Amino acid sequence: MTDDALVAAVGAGSLTEADVRRIVSEELARALRTDPASKRAVIIASKGTLDWAYPPLILASAAAASNMEASIFFTFYGLNIVRRDFAATAMVSPTGNPAMPMPVPMADLFTGLPGMRSVATAMMKSRFKKKGVAGLQELIDACRELGVHLMACTMTMEVFGFSPDDFIDGVELTGAGAFLSQARRAHLTLFV
Amino acid sequence: MTDDALVAAVGAGSLTEADVRRIVSEELARALRTDPASKRAVIIASKGTLDWAYPPLILASAAAASNMEASIFFTFYGLNIVRRDFAATAMVSPTGNPAMPMPVPMADLFTGLPGMRSVATAMMKSRFKKKGVAGLQELIDACRELGVHLMACTMTMEVFGFSPDDFIDGVELTGAGAFLSQARRAHLTLFV
Amino acid sequence: MTDDALVAAVGAGSLTEADVRRIVSEELARALRTDPASKRAVIIASKGTLDWAYPPLILASAAAASNMEASIFFTFYGLNIVRRDFAATAMVSPTGNPAMPMPVPMADLFTGLPGMRSVATAMMKSRFKKKGVAGLQELIDACRELGVHLMACTMTMEVFGFSPDDFIDGVELTGAGAFLSQARRAHLTLFV
Repeated sequence: MTDDALVAAVGAGSLTEADVRRIVSEELARALRTDPASKRAVIIASKGTLDWAYPPLILASAAAASNMEASIFFTFYGLNIVRRDFAATAMVSPTGNPAMPMPVPMADLFTGLPGMRSVATAMMKSRFKKKGVAGLQELIDACRELGVHLMACTMTMEVFGFSPDDFIDGVELTGAGAFLSQARRAHLTLFV
Repeated sequence: MTDDALVAAVGAGSLTEADVRRIVSEELARALRTDPASKRAVIIASKGTLDWAYPPLILASAAAASNMEASIFFTFYGLNIVRRDFAATAMVSPTGNPAMPMPVPMADLFTGLPGMRSVATAMMKSRFKKKGVAGLQELIDACRELGVHLMACTMTMEVFGFSPDDFIDGVELTGAGAFLSQARRAHLTLFV
Repeated sequence: MTDDALVAAVGAGSLTEADVRRIVSEELARALRTDPASKRAVIIASKGTLDWAYPPLILASAAAASNMEASIFFTFYGLNIVRRDFAATAMVSPTGNPAMPMPVPMADLFTGLPGMRSVATAMMKSRFKKKGVAGLQELIDACRELGVHLMACTMTMEVFGFSPDDFIDGVELTGAGAFLSQARRAHLTLFV
Protein backbone atom coordinates (compact mmCIF):
# COMPACT_ATOMS: atom_id res chain seq x y z
CA MET A 1 0.00 0.00 0.00
CA THR A 2 1.38 3.40 -0.88
CA ASP A 3 1.25 6.27 1.55
CA ASP A 4 -1.22 8.02 -0.75
CA ALA A 5 -3.60 5.08 -0.76
CA LEU A 6 -3.28 4.85 2.98
CA VAL A 7 -3.99 8.52 3.46
CA ALA A 8 -7.02 8.21 1.19
CA ALA A 9 -8.25 5.24 3.20
CA VAL A 10 -7.78 7.13 6.45
CA GLY A 11 -9.43 10.19 4.97
CA ALA A 12 -12.41 8.21 3.83
CA GLY A 13 -12.84 6.17 6.95
CA SER A 14 -12.03 8.42 9.83
CA LEU A 15 -14.22 11.13 11.26
CA THR A 16 -13.26 13.80 13.72
CA GLU A 17 -15.17 14.39 16.95
CA ALA A 18 -16.61 17.51 15.32
CA ASP A 19 -17.93 15.40 12.43
CA VAL A 20 -19.55 12.99 14.84
CA ARG A 21 -21.18 15.75 16.87
CA ARG A 22 -22.60 17.24 13.66
CA ILE A 23 -24.01 13.87 12.57
CA VAL A 24 -25.49 13.26 16.01
CA SER A 25 -27.20 16.60 16.11
CA GLU A 26 -28.66 16.06 12.62
CA GLU A 27 -30.01 12.64 13.61
CA LEU A 28 -31.38 14.01 16.87
CA ALA A 29 -33.22 16.83 15.15
CA ARG A 30 -34.73 14.28 12.76
CA ALA A 31 -35.63 11.94 15.63
CA LEU A 32 -37.34 14.67 17.65
CA ARG A 33 -39.30 15.80 14.57
CA THR A 34 -40.54 12.23 14.22
CA ASP A 35 -40.73 11.48 17.96
CA PRO A 36 -43.43 8.82 18.23
CA ALA A 37 -44.78 10.59 21.34
CA SER A 38 -45.78 13.54 19.14
CA LYS A 39 -47.92 11.21 17.03
CA ARG A 40 -50.13 9.94 19.84
CA ALA A 41 -53.14 11.44 21.63
CA VAL A 42 -54.67 9.76 24.66
CA ILE A 43 -57.88 11.31 25.98
CA ILE A 44 -59.76 10.34 29.14
CA ALA A 45 -63.53 10.82 28.94
CA SER A 46 -64.75 11.04 32.55
CA LYS A 47 -68.06 12.91 32.27
CA GLY A 48 -71.37 11.44 31.22
CA THR A 49 -73.60 14.29 30.09
CA LEU A 50 -74.41 15.01 26.46
CA ASP A 51 -72.46 18.27 26.33
CA TRP A 52 -69.26 16.81 27.84
CA ALA A 53 -69.39 13.83 25.47
CA TYR A 54 -68.53 16.13 22.54
CA PRO A 55 -65.01 17.33 23.51
CA PRO A 56 -63.30 13.90 23.77
CA LEU A 57 -64.96 12.64 20.57
CA ILE A 58 -64.19 15.83 18.62
CA LEU A 59 -60.58 16.01 19.86
CA ALA A 60 -59.87 12.31 19.21
CA SER A 61 -61.39 12.32 15.73
CA ALA A 62 -59.50 15.53 14.86
CA ALA A 63 -56.25 13.94 16.07
CA ALA A 64 -56.87 10.75 14.08
CA ALA A 65 -57.74 12.83 11.00
CA SER A 66 -54.32 14.53 11.45
CA ASN A 67 -52.66 11.10 11.21
CA MET A 68 -52.10 10.76 14.94
CA GLU A 69 -52.80 7.50 16.74
CA ALA A 70 -55.71 8.44 19.02
CA SER A 71 -57.30 6.66 21.97
CA ILE A 72 -60.19 7.52 24.27
CA PHE A 73 -60.31 5.86 27.69
CA PHE A 74 -63.94 5.96 28.89
CA THR A 75 -63.97 5.84 32.66
CA PHE A 76 -65.99 7.03 35.63
CA TYR A 77 -69.18 8.82 34.50
CA GLY A 78 -67.73 8.93 30.96
CA LEU A 79 -68.31 5.21 30.57
CA ASN A 80 -71.92 6.14 29.76
CA ILE A 81 -70.85 7.66 26.43
CA VAL A 82 -70.21 4.21 24.93
CA ARG A 83 -73.37 2.61 26.30
CA ARG A 84 -75.78 1.46 23.60
CA ASP A 85 -78.55 3.82 24.61
CA PHE A 86 -76.45 6.92 25.34
CA ALA A 87 -76.87 8.94 22.14
CA ALA A 88 -80.66 8.68 22.38
CA THR A 89 -81.08 9.39 26.09
CA ALA A 90 -78.20 11.67 27.14
CA MET A 91 -79.03 15.08 28.53
CA VAL A 92 -77.19 18.36 28.68
CA SER A 93 -76.69 19.58 32.22
CA PRO A 94 -77.20 23.35 32.16
CA THR A 95 -76.81 23.41 35.93
CA GLY A 96 -73.14 23.88 36.59
CA ASN A 97 -72.63 25.33 33.13
CA PRO A 98 -74.11 28.78 33.58
CA ALA A 99 -71.88 29.94 30.74
CA MET A 100 -73.96 28.09 28.16
CA PRO A 101 -75.45 30.85 26.07
CA MET A 102 -79.20 30.80 26.50
CA PRO A 103 -81.76 32.60 24.32
CA VAL A 104 -82.64 34.63 27.40
CA PRO A 105 -80.63 34.96 30.60
CA MET A 106 -81.93 32.67 33.29
CA ALA A 107 -80.92 31.95 36.85
CA ASP A 108 -79.07 28.78 37.76
CA LEU A 109 -81.95 27.41 39.80
CA PHE A 110 -84.31 27.88 36.88
CA THR A 111 -82.06 25.91 34.52
CA GLY A 112 -82.14 23.18 37.15
CA LEU A 113 -85.86 22.61 36.64
CA PRO A 114 -86.53 19.27 34.97
CA GLY A 115 -88.17 20.82 31.91
CA MET A 116 -85.18 23.06 31.28
CA ARG A 117 -82.91 20.10 30.75
CA SER A 118 -84.92 18.98 27.74
CA VAL A 119 -84.90 22.52 26.37
CA ALA A 120 -81.13 22.81 26.76
CA THR A 121 -80.59 19.37 25.25
CA ALA A 122 -82.75 20.12 22.23
CA MET A 123 -81.08 23.51 21.81
CA MET A 124 -77.58 22.05 21.81
CA LYS A 125 -78.47 19.21 19.44
CA SER A 126 -80.09 21.67 17.05
CA ARG A 127 -77.14 24.10 17.26
CA PHE A 128 -74.66 21.35 16.40
CA LYS A 129 -76.87 20.13 13.52
CA LYS A 130 -77.44 23.57 12.04
CA LYS A 131 -73.73 24.42 12.05
CA GLY A 132 -72.72 21.23 10.27
CA VAL A 133 -71.04 19.77 13.33
CA ALA A 134 -71.64 16.03 13.54
CA GLY A 135 -74.18 14.67 15.98
CA LEU A 136 -73.03 12.35 18.71
CA GLN A 137 -73.74 9.13 16.84
CA GLU A 138 -71.98 10.43 13.74
CA LEU A 139 -68.97 11.44 15.87
CA ILE A 140 -68.71 7.96 17.38
CA ASP A 141 -68.95 6.46 13.90
CA ALA A 142 -66.26 8.85 12.66
CA CYS A 143 -63.98 7.83 15.53
CA ARG A 144 -64.42 4.16 14.63
CA GLU A 145 -63.80 4.76 10.92
CA LEU A 146 -60.67 6.81 11.66
CA GLY A 147 -59.32 4.00 13.84
CA VAL A 148 -59.61 5.77 17.21
CA HIS A 149 -59.15 3.19 19.99
CA LEU A 150 -62.31 3.22 22.14
CA MET A 151 -61.33 1.75 25.51
CA ALA A 152 -63.81 1.11 28.36
CA CYS A 153 -62.45 1.04 31.91
CA THR A 154 -63.11 -2.40 33.39
CA MET A 155 -62.85 -1.18 37.00
CA THR A 156 -65.61 1.40 36.46
CA MET A 157 -67.71 -1.26 34.74
CA GLU A 158 -67.57 -3.39 37.87
CA VAL A 159 -68.24 -0.50 40.25
CA PHE A 160 -71.35 0.56 38.35
CA GLY A 161 -72.42 -2.98 37.49
CA PHE A 162 -72.27 -2.74 33.68
CA SER A 163 -71.79 -5.82 31.51
CA PRO A 164 -69.88 -6.03 28.19
CA ASP A 165 -73.22 -6.24 26.37
CA ASP A 166 -74.14 -2.75 27.55
CA PHE A 167 -71.59 -1.19 25.20
CA ILE A 168 -71.60 -0.33 21.52
CA ASP A 169 -69.58 -2.47 19.10
CA GLY A 170 -65.87 -1.90 18.75
CA VAL A 171 -65.19 -0.94 22.36
CA GLU A 172 -62.20 -2.70 23.96
CA LEU A 173 -62.45 -3.52 27.67
CA THR A 174 -59.18 -2.44 29.31
CA GLY A 175 -57.68 -1.72 32.69
CA ALA A 176 -55.67 1.20 34.01
CA GLY A 177 -52.42 -0.58 33.09
CA ALA A 178 -53.21 -0.65 29.37
CA PHE A 179 -54.26 2.98 29.52
CA LEU A 180 -51.06 4.02 31.31
CA SER A 181 -48.78 2.18 28.90
CA GLN A 182 -50.30 4.22 26.04
CA ALA A 183 -50.50 7.53 27.89
CA ARG A 184 -46.88 7.51 29.07
CA ARG A 185 -45.74 7.40 25.44
CA ALA A 186 -47.98 10.27 24.25
CA HIS A 187 -47.33 14.00 24.36
CA LEU A 188 -51.00 14.89 24.11
CA THR A 189 -52.80 13.54 27.19
CA LEU A 190 -56.05 15.16 28.30
CA PHE A 191 -58.55 14.48 31.08
CA VAL A 192 -61.99 15.63 29.93
CA MET B 1 4.69 11.30 4.76
CA THR B 2 6.49 9.52 7.59
CA ASP B 3 4.88 6.74 9.56
CA ASP B 4 4.87 9.01 12.59
CA ALA B 5 2.99 11.76 10.80
CA LEU B 6 0.55 9.22 9.47
CA VAL B 7 -0.03 7.71 12.89
CA ALA B 8 -0.58 11.21 14.29
CA ALA B 9 -3.09 11.94 11.53
CA VAL B 10 -4.91 8.71 12.19
CA GLY B 11 -4.86 9.32 15.92
CA ALA B 12 -6.28 12.79 15.52
CA GLY B 13 -8.94 11.90 13.02
CA SER B 14 -10.26 8.48 13.91
CA LEU B 15 -12.65 7.64 16.73
CA THR B 16 -13.51 4.23 18.09
CA GLU B 17 -17.07 3.01 18.43
CA ALA B 18 -16.77 3.58 22.19
CA ASP B 19 -15.82 7.22 21.55
CA VAL B 20 -18.82 7.65 19.30
CA ARG B 21 -21.22 6.10 21.78
CA ARG B 22 -19.88 8.43 24.49
CA ILE B 23 -20.35 11.49 22.27
CA VAL B 24 -23.85 10.37 21.31
CA SER B 25 -24.90 9.86 24.88
CA GLU B 26 -23.53 13.30 25.87
CA GLU B 27 -25.42 14.95 23.02
CA LEU B 28 -28.59 13.04 23.83
CA ALA B 29 -28.52 14.04 27.48
CA ARG B 30 -28.08 17.66 26.37
CA ALA B 31 -30.87 17.33 23.81
CA LEU B 32 -33.33 15.85 26.28
CA ARG B 33 -32.52 18.56 28.81
CA THR B 34 -33.36 21.11 26.15
CA ASP B 35 -36.14 19.08 24.49
CA PRO B 36 -38.37 21.72 22.94
CA ALA B 37 -41.43 19.75 24.13
CA SER B 38 -40.45 20.52 27.73
CA LYS B 39 -40.59 24.24 26.94
CA ARG B 40 -44.21 24.31 25.77
CA ALA B 41 -47.51 24.36 27.65
CA VAL B 42 -50.82 24.05 25.81
CA ILE B 43 -53.94 24.51 27.91
CA ILE B 44 -57.53 24.02 26.83
CA ALA B 45 -60.05 26.27 28.59
CA SER B 46 -63.43 24.58 28.21
CA LYS B 47 -65.48 26.00 31.07
CA GLY B 48 -67.19 29.36 31.17
CA THR B 49 -67.80 30.23 34.80
CA LEU B 50 -65.80 32.82 36.72
CA ASP B 51 -64.16 30.28 39.02
CA TRP B 52 -63.03 27.95 36.22
CA ALA B 53 -61.61 30.86 34.24
CA TYR B 54 -58.83 31.26 36.81
CA PRO B 55 -56.94 27.92 36.44
CA PRO B 56 -56.09 28.18 32.71
CA LEU B 57 -55.08 31.85 33.02
CA ILE B 58 -52.99 31.26 36.16
CA LEU B 59 -51.29 28.14 34.75
CA ALA B 60 -50.53 29.74 31.37
CA SER B 61 -49.16 32.95 32.86
CA ALA B 62 -47.04 30.94 35.34
CA ALA B 63 -45.67 28.83 32.47
CA ALA B 64 -44.89 31.92 30.38
CA ALA B 65 -43.22 33.56 33.39
CA SER B 66 -41.02 30.42 33.62
CA ASN B 67 -39.85 31.02 30.04
CA MET B 68 -42.10 28.39 28.53
CA GLU B 69 -44.04 29.06 25.33
CA ALA B 70 -47.65 28.97 26.53
CA SER B 71 -50.94 28.79 24.65
CA ILE B 72 -54.56 28.71 25.76
CA PHE B 73 -57.14 27.25 23.38
CA PHE B 74 -60.55 28.68 24.36
CA THR B 75 -63.22 26.28 23.23
CA PHE B 76 -66.69 25.07 24.16
CA TYR B 77 -68.07 27.00 27.16
CA GLY B 78 -64.53 28.38 27.76
CA LEU B 79 -64.86 30.60 24.71
CA ASN B 80 -66.80 32.96 26.98
CA ILE B 81 -63.61 33.81 28.90
CA VAL B 82 -62.29 35.89 26.00
CA ARG B 83 -65.58 37.65 25.25
CA ARG B 84 -65.44 41.41 25.78
CA ASP B 85 -68.01 41.43 28.54
CA PHE B 86 -66.89 38.32 30.43
CA ALA B 87 -64.81 39.79 33.28
CA ALA B 88 -67.69 42.09 34.25
CA THR B 89 -70.56 39.62 34.03
CA ALA B 90 -69.14 36.15 34.81
CA MET B 91 -70.52 34.26 37.78
CA VAL B 92 -69.16 31.61 40.08
CA SER B 93 -71.23 28.44 40.04
CA PRO B 94 -71.35 27.18 43.63
CA THR B 95 -73.71 24.41 42.54
CA GLY B 96 -71.53 21.52 41.52
CA ASN B 97 -68.67 22.87 43.62
CA PRO B 98 -69.86 22.01 47.11
CA ALA B 99 -66.22 21.98 48.17
CA MET B 100 -65.99 25.76 47.91
CA PRO B 101 -65.40 26.85 51.48
CA MET B 102 -68.36 28.92 52.60
CA PRO B 103 -68.54 31.13 55.67
CA VAL B 104 -71.25 28.79 56.95
CA PRO B 105 -72.06 25.31 55.71
CA MET B 106 -74.99 25.30 53.35
CA ALA B 107 -76.80 22.63 51.41
CA ASP B 108 -76.30 22.25 47.69
CA LEU B 109 -79.84 23.29 46.84
CA PHE B 110 -79.44 26.45 48.85
CA THR B 111 -76.30 27.48 46.95
CA GLY B 112 -78.36 26.95 43.81
CA LEU B 113 -80.67 29.81 44.69
CA PRO B 114 -80.21 32.78 42.34
CA GLY B 115 -79.12 35.13 45.11
CA MET B 116 -76.41 32.78 46.30
CA ARG B 117 -74.60 32.99 43.00
CA SER B 118 -73.99 36.69 43.50
CA VAL B 119 -72.82 36.05 47.05
CA ALA B 120 -70.40 33.35 45.93
CA THR B 121 -69.14 35.52 43.07
CA ALA B 122 -68.51 38.49 45.31
CA MET B 123 -66.85 36.29 47.91
CA MET B 124 -64.42 34.74 45.43
CA LYS B 125 -63.57 38.09 43.82
CA SER B 126 -62.90 39.57 47.24
CA ARG B 127 -60.81 36.56 48.38
CA PHE B 128 -58.59 36.80 45.30
CA LYS B 129 -58.21 40.56 45.75
CA LYS B 130 -57.39 40.41 49.44
CA LYS B 131 -54.71 37.76 48.95
CA GLY B 132 -52.93 39.70 46.24
CA VAL B 133 -53.93 37.28 43.50
CA ALA B 134 -54.69 39.11 40.30
CA GLY B 135 -58.28 39.69 39.23
CA LEU B 136 -59.50 38.18 36.00
CA GLN B 137 -58.86 41.25 33.86
CA GLU B 138 -55.37 41.62 35.28
CA LEU B 139 -54.67 37.93 34.59
CA ILE B 140 -55.74 38.28 30.96
CA ASP B 141 -53.54 41.38 30.66
CA ALA B 142 -50.62 39.48 32.24
CA CYS B 143 -51.09 36.64 29.74
CA ARG B 144 -50.96 39.09 26.84
CA GLU B 145 -47.87 40.87 28.19
CA LEU B 146 -46.07 37.56 28.77
CA GLY B 147 -46.80 36.51 25.19
CA VAL B 148 -49.28 33.73 25.94
CA HIS B 149 -51.04 32.73 22.70
CA LEU B 150 -54.78 33.27 23.20
CA MET B 151 -56.53 31.10 20.61
CA ALA B 152 -60.32 31.04 20.10
CA CYS B 153 -61.86 27.90 18.60
CA THR B 154 -63.56 28.84 15.33
CA MET B 155 -65.83 25.77 15.35
CA THR B 156 -67.28 26.72 18.75
CA MET B 157 -67.69 30.32 17.52
CA GLU B 158 -69.91 29.09 14.72
CA VAL B 159 -71.92 26.69 16.90
CA PHE B 160 -72.72 29.41 19.44
CA GLY B 161 -73.06 32.17 16.84
CA PHE B 162 -70.25 34.46 18.03
CA SER B 163 -68.54 36.91 15.70
CA PRO B 164 -64.86 37.99 15.78
CA ASP B 165 -65.97 41.36 17.21
CA ASP B 166 -67.26 39.63 20.35
CA PHE B 167 -63.72 38.92 21.53
CA ILE B 168 -61.10 40.96 23.33
CA ASP B 169 -58.08 42.22 21.40
CA GLY B 170 -55.17 39.91 20.74
CA VAL B 171 -57.19 36.72 20.38
CA GLU B 172 -56.28 34.58 17.35
CA LEU B 173 -59.12 32.66 15.66
CA THR B 174 -57.90 29.10 15.07
CA GLY B 175 -59.18 25.64 14.27
CA ALA B 176 -58.53 22.27 15.85
CA GLY B 177 -55.67 21.63 13.42
CA ALA B 178 -53.61 24.58 14.65
CA PHE B 179 -54.29 23.56 18.22
CA LEU B 180 -53.23 19.95 17.58
CA SER B 181 -50.00 20.93 15.84
CA GLN B 182 -48.97 22.85 18.97
CA ALA B 183 -50.25 20.32 21.51
CA ARG B 184 -48.52 17.32 19.95
CA ARG B 185 -45.17 19.04 20.45
CA ALA B 186 -45.76 19.96 24.12
CA HIS B 187 -45.19 17.87 27.23
CA LEU B 188 -47.57 19.92 29.35
CA THR B 189 -51.07 19.61 27.89
CA LEU B 190 -54.08 20.20 30.14
CA PHE B 191 -57.85 20.22 29.61
CA VAL B 192 -59.42 22.59 32.12
CA MET C 1 5.24 0.33 11.91
CA THR C 2 4.42 -1.89 8.96
CA ASP C 3 1.71 -0.97 6.51
CA ASP C 4 -0.31 -3.94 7.71
CA ALA C 5 -0.18 -2.86 11.32
CA LEU C 6 -1.11 0.64 10.28
CA VAL C 7 -4.06 -0.55 8.23
CA ALA C 8 -5.18 -2.67 11.17
CA ALA C 9 -4.92 0.34 13.47
CA VAL C 10 -6.91 2.46 11.04
CA GLY C 11 -9.45 -0.32 10.60
CA ALA C 12 -9.92 -0.69 14.32
CA GLY C 13 -10.08 2.97 15.08
CA SER C 14 -11.88 4.62 12.23
CA LEU C 15 -15.60 4.55 11.56
CA THR C 16 -17.38 5.66 8.44
CA GLU C 17 -20.21 8.17 8.51
CA ALA C 18 -22.60 5.24 7.88
CA ASP C 19 -21.25 3.47 10.98
CA VAL C 20 -21.76 6.58 13.05
CA ARG C 21 -25.32 7.10 11.81
CA ARG C 22 -26.13 3.48 12.69
CA ILE C 23 -24.70 3.87 16.22
CA VAL C 24 -26.58 7.12 16.71
CA SER C 25 -29.87 5.63 15.65
CA GLU C 26 -29.37 2.63 17.99
CA GLU C 27 -28.59 4.93 20.91
CA LEU C 28 -31.52 7.17 20.07
CA ALA C 29 -33.98 4.29 19.95
CA ARG C 30 -32.68 3.16 23.35
CA ALA C 31 -32.89 6.69 24.75
CA LEU C 32 -36.46 7.22 23.57
CA ARG C 33 -37.51 3.86 25.02
CA THR C 34 -36.11 5.00 28.35
CA ASP C 35 -37.07 8.67 27.95
CA PRO C 36 -37.42 9.92 31.51
CA ALA C 37 -40.54 11.87 30.46
CA SER C 38 -42.33 8.57 29.84
CA LYS C 39 -41.68 7.58 33.44
CA ARG C 40 -43.42 10.55 35.06
CA ALA C 41 -47.08 11.34 35.71
CA VAL C 42 -48.16 14.73 37.05
CA ILE C 43 -51.82 15.09 37.94
CA ILE C 44 -53.64 18.24 39.02
CA ALA C 45 -56.53 17.66 41.43
CA SER C 46 -58.75 20.74 41.16
CA LYS C 47 -62.16 19.51 42.33
CA GLY C 48 -63.25 19.04 45.91
CA THR C 49 -66.21 16.67 45.91
CA LEU C 50 -65.99 13.05 47.04
CA ASP C 51 -66.59 11.62 43.56
CA TRP C 52 -63.93 13.79 41.85
CA ALA C 53 -61.38 12.93 44.54
CA TYR C 54 -61.19 9.35 43.23
CA PRO C 55 -59.78 9.88 39.71
CA PRO C 56 -56.52 11.69 40.67
CA LEU C 57 -55.83 9.27 43.54
CA ILE C 58 -56.59 6.16 41.45
CA LEU C 59 -54.58 7.39 38.45
CA ALA C 60 -51.56 8.44 40.55
CA SER C 61 -51.46 5.22 42.57
CA ALA C 62 -51.82 3.15 39.37
CA ALA C 63 -48.95 5.10 37.79
CA ALA C 64 -46.74 4.65 40.87
CA ALA C 65 -47.60 0.93 40.95
CA SER C 66 -46.38 0.78 37.32
CA ASN C 67 -42.99 2.14 38.44
CA MET C 68 -43.65 5.68 37.25
CA GLU C 69 -42.74 8.67 39.38
CA ALA C 70 -46.16 10.16 40.20
CA SER C 71 -47.17 13.51 41.68
CA ILE C 72 -50.52 15.06 42.53
CA PHE C 73 -50.76 18.84 42.74
CA PHE C 74 -53.78 19.69 44.91
CA THR C 75 -55.00 23.13 43.98
CA PHE C 76 -58.18 25.19 43.79
CA TYR C 77 -61.17 23.23 45.18
CA GLY C 78 -59.01 20.07 45.06
CA LEU C 79 -56.99 21.31 48.02
CA ASN C 80 -59.83 19.99 50.17
CA ILE C 81 -58.88 16.39 49.33
CA VAL C 82 -55.79 16.56 51.56
CA ARG C 83 -57.50 18.34 54.45
CA ARG C 84 -57.58 16.28 57.65
CA ASP C 85 -61.36 16.03 57.77
CA PHE C 86 -62.05 15.45 54.07
CA ALA C 87 -62.52 11.66 53.92
CA ALA C 88 -65.13 11.84 56.68
CA THR C 89 -67.12 14.84 55.48
CA ALA C 90 -66.85 14.95 51.68
CA MET C 91 -70.01 14.68 49.64
CA VAL C 92 -70.80 13.48 46.16
CA SER C 93 -72.40 16.14 44.01
CA PRO C 94 -75.08 14.43 41.93
CA THR C 95 -76.15 17.80 40.57
CA GLY C 96 -74.05 18.39 37.49
CA ASN C 97 -73.39 14.67 37.16
CA PRO C 98 -76.76 13.49 35.84
CA ALA C 99 -74.91 10.55 34.28
CA MET C 100 -74.35 8.94 37.67
CA PRO C 101 -76.37 5.75 37.45
CA MET C 102 -79.17 5.92 40.00
CA PRO C 103 -81.34 3.04 41.19
CA VAL C 104 -84.28 4.85 39.63
CA PRO C 105 -84.19 7.69 37.11
CA MET C 106 -84.60 11.04 38.78
CA ALA C 107 -84.66 14.59 37.54
CA ASP C 108 -81.70 16.89 38.07
CA LEU C 109 -83.58 19.18 40.44
CA PHE C 110 -84.51 16.23 42.60
CA THR C 111 -80.90 15.10 42.95
CA GLY C 112 -80.18 18.65 44.05
CA LEU C 113 -82.30 18.26 47.17
CA PRO C 114 -80.15 18.21 50.32
CA GLY C 115 -81.23 14.71 51.31
CA MET C 116 -80.25 13.29 47.92
CA ARG C 117 -76.64 14.26 48.43
CA SER C 118 -76.36 11.93 51.41
CA VAL C 119 -78.04 9.17 49.46
CA ALA C 120 -75.69 9.59 46.51
CA THR C 121 -72.68 9.76 48.82
CA ALA C 122 -73.64 6.60 50.69
CA MET C 123 -74.40 4.84 47.43
CA MET C 124 -71.02 5.64 45.90
CA LYS C 125 -69.10 4.72 49.06
CA SER C 126 -70.95 1.40 49.24
CA ARG C 127 -70.44 0.69 45.53
CA PHE C 128 -66.69 1.26 45.83
CA LYS C 129 -66.51 -0.91 48.95
CA LYS C 130 -68.53 -3.79 47.51
CA LYS C 131 -66.45 -3.95 44.34
CA GLY C 132 -63.16 -4.08 46.21
CA VAL C 133 -62.09 -0.61 45.13
CA ALA C 134 -60.28 1.14 47.93
CA GLY C 135 -62.07 3.79 49.96
CA LEU C 136 -60.75 7.31 49.93
CA GLN C 137 -58.62 6.98 53.06
CA GLU C 138 -57.12 3.72 51.81
CA LEU C 139 -56.34 5.34 48.45
CA ILE C 140 -54.52 8.23 50.12
CA ASP C 141 -52.58 5.72 52.24
CA ALA C 142 -51.72 3.70 49.11
CA CYS C 143 -50.45 6.86 47.40
CA ARG C 144 -48.19 7.62 50.34
CA GLU C 145 -46.86 4.05 50.54
CA LEU C 146 -46.17 3.99 46.79
CA GLY C 147 -44.22 7.24 47.07
CA VAL C 148 -46.64 9.50 45.20
CA HIS C 149 -45.67 13.13 45.79
CA LEU C 150 -48.64 14.90 47.41
CA MET C 151 -48.18 18.61 46.77
CA ALA C 152 -50.49 21.32 48.14
CA CYS C 153 -50.70 24.62 46.24
CA THR C 154 -49.54 27.41 48.55
CA MET C 155 -51.34 30.13 46.58
CA THR C 156 -54.70 28.40 46.99
CA MET C 157 -53.95 27.90 50.69
CA GLU C 158 -53.61 31.64 51.11
CA VAL C 159 -56.68 32.49 49.03
CA PHE C 160 -58.90 30.16 51.05
CA GLY C 161 -57.17 30.87 54.37
CA PHE C 162 -55.91 27.35 55.15
CA SER C 163 -52.93 26.75 57.42
CA PRO C 164 -50.32 23.95 57.14
CA ASP C 165 -51.94 22.24 60.14
CA ASP C 166 -55.15 21.73 58.18
CA PHE C 167 -53.51 19.08 55.99
CA ILE C 168 -52.80 15.39 56.45
CA ASP C 169 -49.23 14.23 57.09
CA GLY C 170 -46.84 13.87 54.19
CA VAL C 171 -48.18 16.74 52.11
CA GLU C 172 -45.52 19.09 50.71
CA LEU C 173 -46.43 22.78 50.40
CA THR C 174 -45.35 23.95 46.95
CA GLY C 175 -45.87 26.77 44.50
CA ALA C 176 -46.71 26.79 40.82
CA GLY C 177 -43.00 26.90 39.92
CA ALA C 178 -42.25 23.54 41.55
CA PHE C 179 -45.29 22.06 39.87
CA LEU C 180 -44.28 23.38 36.44
CA SER C 181 -40.71 22.11 36.71
CA GLN C 182 -42.08 18.59 37.22
CA ALA C 183 -44.90 18.81 34.70
CA ARG C 184 -42.73 20.07 31.83
CA ARG C 185 -40.64 16.90 32.09
CA ALA C 186 -43.59 14.47 32.13
CA HIS C 187 -45.49 12.98 29.19
CA LEU C 188 -48.55 12.20 31.26
CA THR C 189 -50.02 15.44 32.57
CA LEU C 190 -53.71 15.59 33.50
CA PHE C 191 -55.99 18.26 34.94
CA VAL C 192 -58.75 16.55 36.91
